Amino acid sequence: MTRKEQRYISSEKQREGFRLACQTKIHADMTVEVQNTDSGGVIMESGRSSPVSCRPNVRQYEVELAPPTLEDFRDDCQRLFDGLRERDAALKELEIDHAVLKKLPGTLRKGKWHVSVAVLGGKTVVDVRAEPLEGVYGVSIDLGTTTLAASLSDLQNGRLLGRTSRMNTQIRYGDDVLSRVSYTMTQEDGLSVLSDAIRKDIQEMMKELAQDAGISLQDIFEVVIVGNTVMEHIFLGLDPQYIGKAPFISVLRKAVDIRADLAGLSIAPSGNVHFLPIEAGFVGADNVAVILAVRPHVQDKNVLVIDIGTNGEIVLGNRNRLLSTSCATGPALEGAQILCGMRAAPGAIEKVKIDPATGMPECRVIGNMKPKGICGSGIIDVIAEMLRAGILRSDGSFDRDVGFSRVRQVGPRSAEYILASSEETGGCGEIVITQKDVRAVQLAKGAIYAGARILMGKLGIEAPERIVLAGAFGSYIDVRNALYIGMFPEVPVHAIESAGNAAGEGARMALLDKECRMEAQEIARHVEFVEVANESSFQRIFFDGMMFHNGKSYKDKRSIS
Amino acid sequence: MTRKEQRYISSEKQREGFRLACQTKIHADMTVEVQNTDSGGVIMESGRSSPVSCRPNVRQYEVELAPPTLEDFRDDCQRLFDGLRERDAALKELEIDHAVLKKLPGTLRKGKWHVSVAVLGGKTVVDVRAEPLEGVYGVSIDLGTTTLAASLSDLQNGRLLGRTSRMNTQIRYGDDVLSRVSYTMTQEDGLSVLSDAIRKDIQEMMKELAQDAGISLQDIFEVVIVGNTVMEHIFLGLDPQYIGKAPFISVLRKAVDIRADLAGLSIAPSGNVHFLPIEAGFVGADNVAVILAVRPHVQDKNVLVIDIGTNGEIVLGNRNRLLSTSCATGPALEGAQILCGMRAAPGAIEKVKIDPATGMPECRVIGNMKPKGICGSGIIDVIAEMLRAGILRSDGSFDRDVGFSRVRQVGPRSAEYILASSEETGGCGEIVITQKDVRAVQLAKGAIYAGARILMGKLGIEAPERIVLAGAFGSYIDVRNALYIGMFPEVPVHAIESAGNAAGEGARMALLDKECRMEAQEIARHVEFVEVANESSFQRIFFDGMMFHNGKSYKDKRSIS
Repeated sequence: MTRKEQRYISSEKQREGFRLACQTKIHADMTVEVQNTDSGGVIMESGRSSPVSCRPNVRQYEVELAPPTLEDFRDDCQRLFDGLRERDAALKELEIDHAVLKKLPGTLRKGKWHVSVAVLGGKTVVDVRAEPLEGVYGVSIDLGTTTLAASLSDLQNGRLLGRTSRMNTQIRYGDDVLSRVSYTMTQEDGLSVLSDAIRKDIQEMMKELAQDAGISLQDIFEVVIVGNTVMEHIFLGLDPQYIGKAPFISVLRKAVDIRADLAGLSIAPSGNVHFLPIEAGFVGADNVAVILAVRPHVQDKNVLVIDIGTNGEIVLGNRNRLLSTSCATGPALEGAQILCGMRAAPGAIEKVKIDPATGMPECRVIGNMKPKGICGSGIIDVIAEMLRAGILRSDGSFDRDVGFSRVRQVGPRSAEYILASSEETGGCGEIVITQKDVRAVQLAKGAIYAGARILMGKLGIEAPERIVLAGAFGSYIDVRNALYIGMFPEVPVHAIESAGNAAGEGARMALLDKECRMEAQEIARHVEFVEVANESSFQRIFFDGMMFHNGKSYKDKRSIS
Repeated sequence: MTRKEQRYISSEKQREGFRLACQTKIHADMTVEVQNTDSGGVIMESGRSSPVSCRPNVRQYEVELAPPTLEDFRDDCQRLFDGLRERDAALKELEIDHAVLKKLPGTLRKGKWHVSVAVLGGKTVVDVRAEPLEGVYGVSIDLGTTTLAASLSDLQNGRLLGRTSRMNTQIRYGDDVLSRVSYTMTQEDGLSVLSDAIRKDIQEMMKELAQDAGISLQDIFEVVIVGNTVMEHIFLGLDPQYIGKAPFISVLRKAVDIRADLAGLSIAPSGNVHFLPIEAGFVGADNVAVILAVRPHVQDKNVLVIDIGTNGEIVLGNRNRLLSTSCATGPALEGAQILCGMRAAPGAIEKVKIDPATGMPECRVIGNMKPKGICGSGIIDVIAEMLRAGILRSDGSFDRDVGFSRVRQVGPRSAEYILASSEETGGCGEIVITQKDVRAVQLAKGAIYAGARILMGKLGIEAPERIVLAGAFGSYIDVRNALYIGMFPEVPVHAIESAGNAAGEGARMALLDKECRMEAQEIARHVEFVEVANESSFQRIFFDGMMFHNGKSYKDKRSIS
C-alpha cells in the first residue's frame, strides 16, 4: 500500500481490502470489473403534472364480426378491416402487421368473431385478441447519459400508473457521451455492447413498472423515448462517431418509429417505439421534450431553459425565436467525478451550511442517516458556503491561510475541506472537498454560463426574463447558492423556477397525445442550434465563466448572499 | 416378396431391391423417407414474350452530396434525401430502412459523399453503396403446387437474364393443396416445415439464377411471387386450414409487400417481396397473373382461360364480366398419381399413336432415349388413342375383348395397356396404363369440364369464342386429343391456343412494371369468384364430365377425330 493509498483510504476501508486503482502497477494481463456500488433508489422529482390531453397513438376497439358464409366469403383480414371501419370511420387505410396476420385466423375463430383489436396510428392493426384487452398501456422514457427515468401510463385515460429510475449501466463504459462514443470506436462490437446494455436497462425498468402496476408487458403498445443525440444513436444501433467531432453530424434527426421487436424491446410484439426528433449536434429529443413541457415557444417573454445533466442543454428565446446549444457539463453536478460524490440517494449530503466564523459545516443528509458522500445539490451548497466563508477564492483556489481546522493543507500549494470527519460518518472515512472537485464544478458551471451568455449575445438581450431549471438536479439545488457561485446569468432569485424532470414530462406528453408529436416536429424545425464552440468569443466567456461570480470581483458580489 | 410385388416390379428392379410400400407389413416403429427420384430439369414453355413496359418498383440513383461543414450540419439522412430529391423531384416523402440507416454514415464517408442508392416504390431507401451498383435485378416466381418456375430480370431495361424451374420440395408432404393443408393441421410445426421447404427451394433457385447470370444475390432488390392461395399462405406462414373447408376463407386476399428478410429470403437485405392479390378461395395470385398475361379483361370476345396445374383454375368472360373458379384437377396431368407417370423430363413419353388395327403403340420420348415413364401430354395422347382404338369405352372401362396383345387382363374384371414392354424400356420394367390411371385422368378432366360448364351457365353462353390454355401442360398437349376426350367445352380446334406459362409471364410483368400491380388489383376486384361446389347442378355436370366425350355416346363423337 503506497503512502497515497494510506492517506486517501480510511482505515476501515483499508481493512476491507480497498486499494486505489491509480496507484496499482499492472504486471500482467488482468480483468478489471467496474462495479456500480451505488444501488439505492434515485430520488427523482416528478415534474409538474401539466394537464395533458389524452389523444393516444394506440387505440383499442371491440369488434363483433359476422361469421363467414358461402355467400359472404370475405377474407379474415378484410372482414376485420370492415368491422373496424364500422366502429370508427376514420380508420380508412388500414394495414396489418405480419405477426398479427399470422395469429388472425385462429384468434377470430377462438373469439367466435368477437375480438379486441389494438390499432396504431389510426392505421396499423398491431394486436387482435380473442379475450377483451385488459388495457392499452404506454411507457415514456428519459434516456439520460447517467440516469434513466421511466413512467407507465394508461393510454385510455392518461392516468400515471408508476415511475421508476436507475443508473444507466453504460456508465461502466464511460462517464459522458464523448467517452461512450470513443468506446464504440475503439472496442470491437463496442456499439453493440452499449446498445445491448441500454436496451437491457430499459427492459428491466419496464418489467418493474409492469409488475408493480399488475399489468402484462404484452399490454404495453407504445414506448416514447427521449435522450440526447448520442444516447438515441446508440439505442438505435447507429454509429455515433460523427456526432462527436466537428462538424458534429448525426445520422438522422427526424422522429423515428420502429417496431418494438426490431428495437429489441419485449412489449406487445408489434408495438411501436417512438423517438422525438433531434434538434442538432448533441441537442437531442430530450431537449425537444423539455421545450414541449416548459413551452418557451408559445410565450412572449424570453425564457432561458437550462437542463442540467451530464450533457447540459440550454434553450433561450420566446415565440418569435428560439436558440439552443449544448454544453459539456460533465457528471460533476450529478455527484460523479467528485472524490466523495454520489447520487441523490440515502446517505448523500444534500444541504450544507458553513459557519463563517469557525468554518464548521452543518449538513442535511438524505434519509437522516450518517453521511456516505455528497450529491449535486450538496456540492453547489458547499462551494457557495466555502466562498462565503473565505475558504475559496473566486478563482477557485483554496485560501490556505483562512485558519479553520476543517481546512487541511495538502502538499506545498493545495488544500482540502473536511466536510465530514471519520467520526461524523460513523467510521466510513472522511468526506472531503478537494481542489480537483472545485475545478470540476468550475468547468461545469463555466460551460453552462458560457452557453447561456453566447445565446443571449446572439439574441441581443442583456438578461432573460425568466430562468427555468429542468432536470432532477434543478429541482433540488439551492437556487440562491447556484446564483451566488455564478452558475446562471444574473436575474432576481424569484425569476428562477424549477420544472422538475421536464424531459420525462415532455416524453409523457408525446406518449399520451399524438398532437404533441406534431408539435415536437415543429419545435425541432423551429429551434436554431448554435454551435457555441464556433463562436470567437467562446474561449473568453468560458474562461470568465470558470471564475466564481463570473470574472467579477469577490467583494462586489458578497451582497448577493 | 408377395405375388403382387412380383407382378408389378420388374425383375431388374427386384434385383435392385425395390419393394412395394403398399405390400409391406409394419411390425414396429419405422422411419419412411420419401424420395423424389425425378430430378431432371423440367422443360418449361417460356410463355409468349409479350412486350412489357419497364417501369420498375426499384430504381437506382447515383448521388453526389456536398460534404457537411460547421454551417451545413444537416444530418446524413436529410442530406441523402435532399440529394435524391435534386435528382428526381418525384421522390417526395422519403423513408429509409433501418438496416440501411445503420450503414449510412460509414458508406457516405467511404464513398466520399458520392454514393449509389436504391429506392423502392419511389419512397424507401433500401440500399446505399460507396461503389456504383452493378445493377438492380428482380426475380419473378410462379409458385406451383408441384412445379416452381423462376426468372431473373434486369430491372433497368427489362431484359430477361435467365429462367429455371424445379419440383416443389413440399410434394414429399402431400401431392395437392388439400393434403398440404392437412399436413399443417396434423403435424406439429407442420406449417413451419412446409414454409421452410418452399423458402429453401426459392432461395436455391435464386442462387442458381444469380450464379448463371454472374450477378450477386445482394443486387436482387425485388421478388414477385404468384401462387395459389394455399401456396401463398404457406409461404407467408399464414394458417391455411380455413381455405380448405367451407366456406373456404383465406386469411387475406390483398396484395402483400414484405421485407425480404422477414419473408426469409436472402437477397438485398431490405429488398421487397411482393405477392399479387388473391381472387377468392383457392383462386390465387397465380390466376391474377394469368389474366394479366392473357388479358381477357380487355377483350370483347368471351374467352375461356384454363390453367391446368395440380389445382386447376378457370376464367371465363370478357371486358364486361369475368368469372373464375378452381377445380381440384389433381396432379395426374402433371404425371403424378399415374403408375408410370413422370414429369416432362428426358425419358418421358410425350406423344403416343396407337394403330387402331393392331393396338400397337408408337411413342415419342423426350431426349430421344429409351422411355422411363409417361408425362402429361403423353397421358392425354394415350387415353385418346386407346379410345379411338376401342381399348377404352367412353365410361373409361377397358374393353377386355378387344383382342390386342398389348391389352392384358388383370383379375376378373379389369385390364391394362402395355405402352412399353420391358425390352422397349431397355430392361427398366414395363410402362403400363392401368384402370386406376384412366380413372385419375377422368377425375381431372371431369373437374375441368364441370368448372367450365358451370361458368358458361352462369354467364349464359353456349360456348366460348376462344379457349386459352395457360401453364406448361397446355403448351405441350395435343389439343385435338384433349378435345377428343372431352377435356374442354366443344369449340373448333383453331379456337384453342396455348399461352405457355402465363402465370409466370404475368408475374414477370408485375415485376417489371409497377402499373401492372395496379391493374392486378383491379382484376382481383373485378373477377367474380364462383364456388362451383355450391351449384346444384355440379354433381350431374361433374359426373357427365367424367365420361369421355362428356356423357354423349361414343359413336356420336368419333367424327371429331
